[in-house]
Amino acid sequence: MTEAKGDIGLIGLAVMGENLVLNMESRGFTCSVYNRTTSKVDEFVQGRGKGKKFIGCHSLETLVQSLKTPRRVMLMVKAGEVVDHFIQLLLPLLEKGDIIIDGGNSLYTDSDRRTKDLDTKGILFIGTGVSGGEEGALHGPSIMPGGNPKAWEHVKPIFQAISAKVQPGDQPCCDWVGDGGAGHYVKMVHNGIEYGDMQLISEAYFILKHYLGLNNDELQKTFAKWNTGDLDSYLIEITADIFGKKDEKNSNVYVVDTILDSAGQKGTGKWTAINALDVGIPLTLVAESVFARCVSSFKEERVKASTILAGPNPTEAHKKFTGDREQVIEAVRQALFASKLVSYAQGFTMMKAAAKEYKWNLNYGNIALLWRGGCIIRSTFLGEIKSAFEKDPQLDNLLTDCWFRDKLAASQDGWRQVASISVLHGIPTPAFTSALSYYDSYRCAKLSANLVQAQRDYFGAHTFQLLDDPKGAPVHVNWTGRGGSTHSTTYSI
Amino acid sequence: MTEAKGDIGLIGLAVMGENLVLNMESRGFTCSVYNRTTSKVDEFVQGRGKGKKFIGCHSLETLVQSLKTPRRVMLMVKAGEVVDHFIQLLLPLLEKGDIIIDGGNSLYTDSDRRTKDLDTKGILFIGTGVSGGEEGALHGPSIMPGGNPKAWEHVKPIFQAISAKVQPGDQPCCDWVGDGGAGHYVKMVHNGIEYGDMQLISEAYFILKHYLGLNNDELQKTFAKWNTGDLDSYLIEITADIFGKKDEKNSNVYVVDTILDSAGQKGTGKWTAINALDVGIPLTLVAESVFARCVSSFKEERVKASTILAGPNPTEAHKKFTGDREQVIEAVRQALFASKLVSYAQGFTMMKAAAKEYKWNLNYGNIALLWRGGCIIRSTFLGEIKSAFEKDPQLDNLLTDCWFRDKLAASQDGWRQVASISVLHGIPTPAFTSALSYYDSYRCAKLSANLVQAQRDYFGAHTFQLLDDPKGAPVHVNWTGRGGSTHSTTYSI
Repeated sequence: MTEAKGDIGLIGLAVMGENLVLNMESRGFTCSVYNRTTSKVDEFVQGRGKGKKFIGCHSLETLVQSLKTPRRVMLMVKAGEVVDHFIQLLLPLLEKGDIIIDGGNSLYTDSDRRTKDLDTKGILFIGTGVSGGEEGALHGPSIMPGGNPKAWEHVKPIFQAISAKVQPGDQPCCDWVGDGGAGHYVKMVHNGIEYGDMQLISEAYFILKHYLGLNNDELQKTFAKWNTGDLDSYLIEITADIFGKKDEKNSNVYVVDTILDSAGQKGTGKWTAINALDVGIPLTLVAESVFARCVSSFKEERVKASTILAGPNPTEAHKKFTGDREQVIEAVRQALFASKLVSYAQGFTMMKAAAKEYKWNLNYGNIALLWRGGCIIRSTFLGEIKSAFEKDPQLDNLLTDCWFRDKLAASQDGWRQVASISVLHGIPTPAFTSALSYYDSYRCAKLSANLVQAQRDYFGAHTFQLLDDPKGAPVHVNWTGRGGSTHSTTYSI
Repeated sequence: MTEAKGDIGLIGLAVMGENLVLNMESRGFTCSVYNRTTSKVDEFVQGRGKGKKFIGCHSLETLVQSLKTPRRVMLMVKAGEVVDHFIQLLLPLLEKGDIIIDGGNSLYTDSDRRTKDLDTKGILFIGTGVSGGEEGALHGPSIMPGGNPKAWEHVKPIFQAISAKVQPGDQPCCDWVGDGGAGHYVKMVHNGIEYGDMQLISEAYFILKHYLGLNNDELQKTFAKWNTGDLDSYLIEITADIFGKKDEKNSNVYVVDTILDSAGQKGTGKWTAINALDVGIPLTLVAESVFARCVSSFKEERVKASTILAGPNPTEAHKKFTGDREQVIEAVRQALFASKLVSYAQGFTMMKAAAKEYKWNLNYGNIALLWRGGCIIRSTFLGEIKSAFEKDPQLDNLLTDCWFRDKLAASQDGWRQVASISVLHGIPTPAFTSALSYYDSYRCAKLSANLVQAQRDYFGAHTFQLLDDPKGAPVHVNWTGRGGSTHSTTYSI
């Protein structure tokens, strides 16, 4: 038997898995690789991995045998049953103290369960979020590990070496998030926020294109310019790139114009919105973004409805535009930025609620730092979130931090203008307007929910609290003069 | 042993249970009643039930013994474990062919499970939605039964006798919905729509009160007037009543003004929104309404934020209002009505998707009829939904029905005007604007989701479809000129 040389074993050679091990190898680690379709192993070792320190394995046995102890086996496979399947296959091959790492987009409750189950068997489990897409995986992703804290010291050197770094001081975008499912939870929220960011950018695009009539070159320049200011971020940067990309076969055609306007989704945005509903935290931008993708997917129905339903034609709006284009471009930028601030504030509020509910000790400033580089939502302004939580680790809502407050104050004229333009011209901006409604609700000392409470008491005897005595005994009014004195104890809506 | 005389047995004497059996008794049925706290049984039989055909029971044994066969036992207890608990207690007391009915707000998946479990034991289960609040339960609720179809003939005479009736022809607002959890599913959607209706009314209230400065008397008159037109519905009717209700101790004070603006929620709205995310159907009004209740509950944070965050003060807006009040009142009515049309269209679209996914054979016109009377969302316009599905049972989306289309066309100027007023004046209208965004998205033949697909392909090699070849092979572009040719097969967001 040969000496075990592998620092880490990887199962699953799809794009993320391949790039992660290429990244690890480039940092000096020897990686054993395995794939269910074993021809992929050979293709990789003789292809992109050629001449590098990879140990190609055609079975899980040889993969495990090739690893130094405690063994570190990382799964980059489809989330769900496939993860459990490989864990079951690995269990008889591993020894106590060995480590299984799941780097897929697993549901945090699954990671919670796996951490506990494997702990009873002496195996240390890590469920980690990995973000950055294929480029990030190769050059430095954001890594959000959670699970069994005893495993952290064993994977920390590898993960922090391969992760993205941010200045000052080359801080790694990888640190321990928390117990059980905490890592995958934070990754889930990251993905939810990513849905929101993408939707906001697509709303800005719609307005710039149809209301102002900007062509792709102008769009490219606009986003490139935005990327030098408050909006400086990976998604804005690639959006600029996208508008510049021409068809390889026809240089008169821009790729973006050839793409079907029907967006897919695969779960994590949906999970984030579902969890928001469960923990009772308004995460309106993520929910609206997921729903917007759903509407986009009803392409045939939309084409039909476009000939039936009345309203202004937004794609014709630019023909009548007579205002100051630069002023409106700046207003769109403000709408995008302000909505983004709301989205992140909502996301961090949700993590606070989840930490309380699931008994995690999350460091919100550190989470902002993890996202600062490497991942899809990386941006300059995450540094401001870190600062906000350093100033006040107990901050209820980022909106009330002074940096956020001032940026929102400076952006809201444009934000309101763009929202108004949209509703008047038939331009769908669910995320811009939802963000604005949240902002206006959150800063409203007295909302109209007293009427909702009156209605609930009227039809269901649900009782209500008094404005002057909010902690006092609930009150029921016999609104109709009919009905009994029996209150609702089992019925509520 | 005395002869069994009870037509139906009821467990759970909270307000809904009490009123339901009073209703049954008034229709000639003899009802046996039981409550876990047995003193409530005596209080009821000697109180509201005095001199009526009730059989008070202090144990489940006596309850079951008092019933004619096949026995019909109805649970009106807290949804969740309590229902399973009583089912377990009842099982040894019942015989094959007996019927257990759960009339609480149970999750449809629980009713699905209970139908199947009990079927294996020879017990017929019905999970039924009951809506109408305490008044409805007493005088005629809307009843939405699902479960084991073999049970229907045994409960139909009682349920159709006590249900609300609508004209023409005294049609009962009660009919078989479908197998397993279908009844509770439809009730869940009903409650979600109810959340939306209540939120929409509270947004109209906020604008009328703060932007136009209407006092409670004027609000009462406005809603009473609205109740004579397209908006004719129970919730509008009780809203008018609410604005007229004065404090019993101080006739200068209106009750609505004394109520804390913090709305509670107990689950069914949340479930509806979660299910919408699961089946991939945009139910934006329900989600926004649930989230709006969440924001309302952060009262202390809002009071604090109101002194920190900049923006127009909406409660001062009426001081500067100089326009035509009646014109704006009509615009608010249009916004409320159009948003409501969107909300119902979304709800029925979701039921279509659920029926497909869960293999239910739902009759959408009949469901509209069930809601036409008795329940909280009862309204004249549900008759139009019934007509729309009679004209086209396969209708994709109610918005494209000609009645809906024309009403939306006639309402949209006011709708857009009010949405614009709201965003410019800092008035939170998440449901009005979300409904409008959905409308404008649904009637938009070409959305900006092509950019979202470009971004997903850029950072994650997710591939996309071509506009000119929507069913063709997915395309991947090497956007950066770097990166491998490996596509994503396991990673998606």
